[in-house]
Amino acid sequence: MIVVSKPNTTEEQISEVVHKIQKLGLIPHVVRGQNQYTISILGKTEKLQTSEFAMFPFIENILRISKPFKLAYKMTNPEGTKIKIKNLEIGSDQIIMMAGPCSVESEDQLMRIARAVKQHGATVIRGGAFKPRSSPYSFQGMGMKGLELLKMASEETGLPIISEAMDVEGLKMMMDYVDIIQIGARNMQNFSLLKELGQIDKPVMLKRGMSATIEEWLMSAEYILAGGNRKVLLCERGIRTFDTQYSRNTLDLNAIPILKSLTHLPIVVDPSHGTGYRHLVSPMALAGVAAGGDALIVEVHDKPDEALSDGPQALLPTDFEILMKQLSGLGDVLSRPLLTQIPRKAA
Amino acid sequence: MIVVSKPNTTEEQISEVVHKIQKLGLIPHVVRGQNQYTISILGKTEKLQTSEFAMFPFIENILRISKPFKLAYKMTNPEGTKIKIKNLEIGSDQIIMMAGPCSVESEDQLMRIARAVKQHGATVIRGGAFKPRSSPYSFQGMGMKGLELLKMASEETGLPIISEAMDVEGLKMMMDYVDIIQIGARNMQNFSLLKELGQIDKPVMLKRGMSATIEEWLMSAEYILAGGNRKVLLCERGIRTFDTQYSRNTLDLNAIPILKSLTHLPIVVDPSHGTGYRHLVSPMALAGVAAGGDALIVEVHDKPDEALSDGPQALLPTDFEILMKQLSGLGDVLSRPLLTQIPRKAA
Amino acid sequence: MIVVSKPNTTEEQISEVVHKIQKLGLIPHVVRGQNQYTISILGKTEKLQTSEFAMFPFIENILRISKPFKLAYKMTNPEGTKIKIKNLEIGSDQIIMMAGPCSVESEDQLMRIARAVKQHGATVIRGGAFKPRSSPYSFQGMGMKGLELLKMASEETGLPIISEAMDVEGLKMMMDYVDIIQIGARNMQNFSLLKELGQIDKPVMLKRGMSATIEEWLMSAEYILAGGNRKVLLCERGIRTFDTQYSRNTLDLNAIPILKSLTHLPIVVDPSHGTGYRHLVSPMALAGVAAGGDALIVEVHDKPDEALSDGPQALLPTDFEILMKQLSGLGDVLSRPLLTQIPRKAA
Amino acid sequence: MIVVSKPNTTEEQISEVVHKIQKLGLIPHVVRGQNQYTISILGKTEKLQTSEFAMFPFIENILRISKPFKLAYKMTNPEGTKIKIKNLEIGSDQIIMMAGPCSVESEDQLMRIARAVKQHGATVIRGGAFKPRSSPYSFQGMGMKGLELLKMASEETGLPIISEAMDVEGLKMMMDYVDIIQIGARNMQNFSLLKELGQIDKPVMLKRGMSATIEEWLMSAEYILAGGNRKVLLCERGIRTFDTQYSRNTLDLNAIPILKSLTHLPIVVDPSHGTGYRHLVSPMALAGVAAGGDALIVEVHDKPDEALSDGPQALLPTDFEILMKQLSGLGDVLSRPLLTQIPRKAA
Repeated sequence: MIVVSKPNTTEEQISEVVHKIQKLGLIPHVVRGQNQYTISILGKTEKLQTSEFAMFPFIENILRISKPFKLAYKMTNPEGTKIKIKNLEIGSDQIIMMAGPCSVESEDQLMRIARAVKQHGATVIRGGAFKPRSSPYSFQGMGMKGLELLKMASEETGLPIISEAMDVEGLKMMMDYVDIIQIGARNMQNFSLLKELGQIDKPVMLKRGMSATIEEWLMSAEYILAGGNRKVLLCERGIRTFDTQYSRNTLDLNAIPILKSLTHLPIVVDPSHGTGYRHLVSPMALAGVAAGGDALIVEVHDKPDEALSDGPQALLPTDFEILMKQLSGLGDVLSRPLLTQIPRKAA
Repeated sequence: MIVVSKPNTTEEQISEVVHKIQKLGLIPHVVRGQNQYTISILGKTEKLQTSEFAMFPFIENILRISKPFKLAYKMTNPEGTKIKIKNLEIGSDQIIMMAGPCSVESEDQLMRIARAVKQHGATVIRGGAFKPRSSPYSFQGMGMKGLELLKMASEETGLPIISEAMDVEGLKMMMDYVDIIQIGARNMQNFSLLKELGQIDKPVMLKRGMSATIEEWLMSAEYILAGGNRKVLLCERGIRTFDTQYSRNTLDLNAIPILKSLTHLPIVVDPSHGTGYRHLVSPMALAGVAAGGDALIVEVHDKPDEALSDGPQALLPTDFEILMKQLSGLGDVLSRPLLTQIPRKAA
Repeated sequence: MIVVSKPNTTEEQISEVVHKIQKLGLIPHVVRGQNQYTISILGKTEKLQTSEFAMFPFIENILRISKPFKLAYKMTNPEGTKIKIKNLEIGSDQIIMMAGPCSVESEDQLMRIARAVKQHGATVIRGGAFKPRSSPYSFQGMGMKGLELLKMASEETGLPIISEAMDVEGLKMMMDYVDIIQIGARNMQNFSLLKELGQIDKPVMLKRGMSATIEEWLMSAEYILAGGNRKVLLCERGIRTFDTQYSRNTLDLNAIPILKSLTHLPIVVDPSHGTGYRHLVSPMALAGVAAGGDALIVEVHDKPDEALSDGPQALLPTDFEILMKQLSGLGDVLSRPLLTQIPRKAA
Repeated sequence: MIVVSKPNTTEEQISEVVHKIQKLGLIPHVVRGQNQYTISILGKTEKLQTSEFAMFPFIENILRISKPFKLAYKMTNPEGTKIKIKNLEIGSDQIIMMAGPCSVESEDQLMRIARAVKQHGATVIRGGAFKPRSSPYSFQGMGMKGLELLKMASEETGLPIISEAMDVEGLKMMMDYVDIIQIGARNMQNFSLLKELGQIDKPVMLKRGMSATIEEWLMSAEYILAGGNRKVLLCERGIRTFDTQYSRNTLDLNAIPILKSLTHLPIVVDPSHGTGYRHLVSPMALAGVAAGGDALIVEVHDKPDEALSDGPQALLPTDFEILMKQLSGLGDVLSRPLLTQIPRKAA
């Protein structure tokens, strides 16, 4: 960490800072510039907070040099983390497609859609049993019954399941039913829940908060990693910007190559929530893979006008089939083949 | 709700929509314009979702007329809600000041600061026992011990206590210790927690999410109100914008008169988190009251350079004393006197 | 346009609005709902402003149905506009690459880079002679001398030139030197300049303002189109969001498929300014084409550490060569071949 | 300026940077930390760009210590700049009110409103003759005729005039007619226009761009100051954020105390554009003064439903009268009296 004084700071003032640094067990190194002092702080500065110095009125600027995320940092695993789910692996060279309805609505609905997405090459089924809704008057999900239906879909198709947990209680219910726990954007900084997720032995897909910085997102992943669970996937699902007239969110694909340079964790792209409208989903799915995404998560519904949530952003099975063909071609060009069937043996 | 077609939509297409509306038990009223149809939907449309119509490809626009928040809506209590906490009342003509340290750090620290803020006219003490921190490596609060210290400070000073709950477990612990439950920005859409808050008989101060729209914020209040707890305070604490070089957040004071026109709930302004720097707190506290805020919540620390969290934004007791004098003058001009002592009798 | 009243509006109030509509030469159509009135306005409403009604205190909501952009609207040219520049065509099935240095710095620098980008398949050369810089103390471009060098580069390579005009005076100087006039983000709403651009007979590439909505951007294009110049290209170059730690801007690729559905104008993607860092440029260039972009504009410099502006975001010629190969493969998958040589005959 | 290397950078790499610094005529001071090097650069670093170093791949971070704005920086005039306009002074202890219609629409309209605002204590008249409009089809202002009417209003009332220039041509026309040149948000980074403004001898009120950072805004002021014109006023008029449902912009009052700490230039607050709706204007005008603004600029119209632009945000003269009384009381509390009459003698 580096501390910079304002112009005309006195030597006495600088010595207050020097004293504070020494009291913290660290080593100050003072450089006197034309108008200002800079103090480099040496030693074990990982947990040092910038706020330790912010209250000296003659300090102008504080620069943290090292990243505040340690376990999520790329350098701790430069080859990249591969997360195994049954015989699948996310984070390998292969592109993975997760697909299914926004919400589980009935056995019939789920099974129809599960079969359709499997047929066209999805290798993970998505579906919500607990739904975070901005209105208390909206459909809140089928709960336990939804989990049972997801289990049934998994058993028939052989595909693993991803579904969202909204709280600790729901998380416990889900442990025997789903293969990947999804944490939604609104819970990205629900620190109590993140601590629980650090204790479980199951992959967690952590969606980015609507206005979370890259660093805040990685710090939330760090909560899970620090708790002992190293199976974390990051999911970009669109950020909030000033223009919401023609899309619900702004899918931030810049984040994909940025994350690739900062972290070893695999990256999933959600073009359904990232856009909010069906006609934008397929182009942005392709773009997400071109930008370097390891997996996609896409909403599919065969009767979107009857969907209990998010119908407008669901692809029809026929749209999905076309998308999968385009992705397959794109994967070949990028030397990242699209996986369209669960391998018989573990990767 | 009003549904508008694209240009060149056919009568057959419109009749599909008409049919759907009728199937929902509602009454369509079609108007044919120069190029487009508009369909007004009459009947009990309160719970009708715009998504019901979004999947017709020939629909261009859907307009919800009535507000999605019913219980929080101003018209349900045009005179405004007054929330009683012991002998205090928030939402009345009097301005209320809540003040204290960011975190409870020790008995000595809390008691010193509690006495100072009481002396200068605060009538509620704030202090965190459970701290939401973006890093898992930062100080996480004293927990139960902190609650006990808060109780002690309340007993000595006679002032009620506000403190933050981060989860259901913490909420239960706090019920016997604090007078107002604070819900932080990161939990504004923690719907599981909001549902619990609807079940308790204690005032809740709901902070606005970092990028929450006014409407999302009111919908989160609606979760609590709909559960049966009508004692909700809204707290503006700064939103996230594109410029964070000179302030941590952007205190959105436009929100104050907007809320005054939309809801009957009392409004608290937090200029400490809303700015992040001590030298900005007092001007923005004054501005918050000038804009119409009913109460302020301000961080005060007598040794900010030793604070375990948010030292740079804490006012010194001497700053706080000056601010209280300015607020007192301002309150007189606005005919909203600053309350500086707990009344002997309930309001 | 549709006007919606607040609950409990009286018939007398509605008749004021009806009267106003009739005075404007338009036809009101009133529908009485459960609590509210809606008034559809029929007739020539294209130029009607919502502000005509906003001052009635009992009006709750006003919905504009038709798009405010007429000439830019897709329906006026559903097949899409193709813009011819010498023998090139932008907006056809072929992907076009524009490349070159940020600024023209010297004959030697420009010629070296122009030859390199031509060799690897760029078909338009970019280079700034007039540079908009946020600091008055930064390099402001070579001006007329830069234009002469660009002309020289065009003559040797046979490639057309794109360069930025910052004002009317510069625009006049450029007419004989460049083939496409670039308008920068900071001038997107310089309406005086836009009016001048409507008067010229030369293609204009209009960059999106840093925080311009899609609709504002199309309205700025409308200024040029309404003046009589139909050769307008739109360039997405990144928007401003809350996180600038790891990229200068957020390249908004959602905008690409959105524009495809709203306008017939060709779309260019600028991953250099859209990211600000070299290691992000190539992934985002690929993503931009996957999302549906018609052309790319990319900064290339062979000695980026000596560049007078924007060195950190310039690709090296070797990076550029690799990118062009990847784009070529991607173009084939998307049935949009990358053009790598100027055709002998006009398209 | 301080340059920080990535972990594991070698001594050879650091010596490349050292060499570059020396070549620039500056003095490097290297400190070797636990994992990283930091290099403080001493000497005349004012015009050094961070981009000089950004291309070394082993550089992790670059910190500029000194402000890039020199002439606008508070330290160059710690007592604050006072700008004289006839006998008025902006930037003194007194609060100044500028008021009038959005656009000049007719002699009758302007004179009625000018008399009303003078009567209630405005000391500058505002009114647009050239109007920046996002649609080419909207009213674009009366032009020269509008300037003549403004002159007439000034002569009758004795109040100075503020009006907007959109380009160099308009600026020249305005020199004999108006007392303060207003530069609108969309032209804040029209650098060609800023350079012209540096050459004139007349006060300029520079509005903040819709998404301009504080630093970009001060750099634009720097363009004018560096040209030789030291009479610059800064006007906060609302920024663009994610929520535009209930206000057009978000008036950023945090910016007021921030600017007070960074610059000596006087600060004007525009609550009309900063909110966009009449019922929000007065509370935010009061808040703007409480936050430390030196002057206000407010739109007033006696027939807002007939206004050709921005009717919904115009105060009625009766609203304005009430606001002025409240401001007068507030000014007294803050020891900043509201000026309500032009002094007979210059300040």
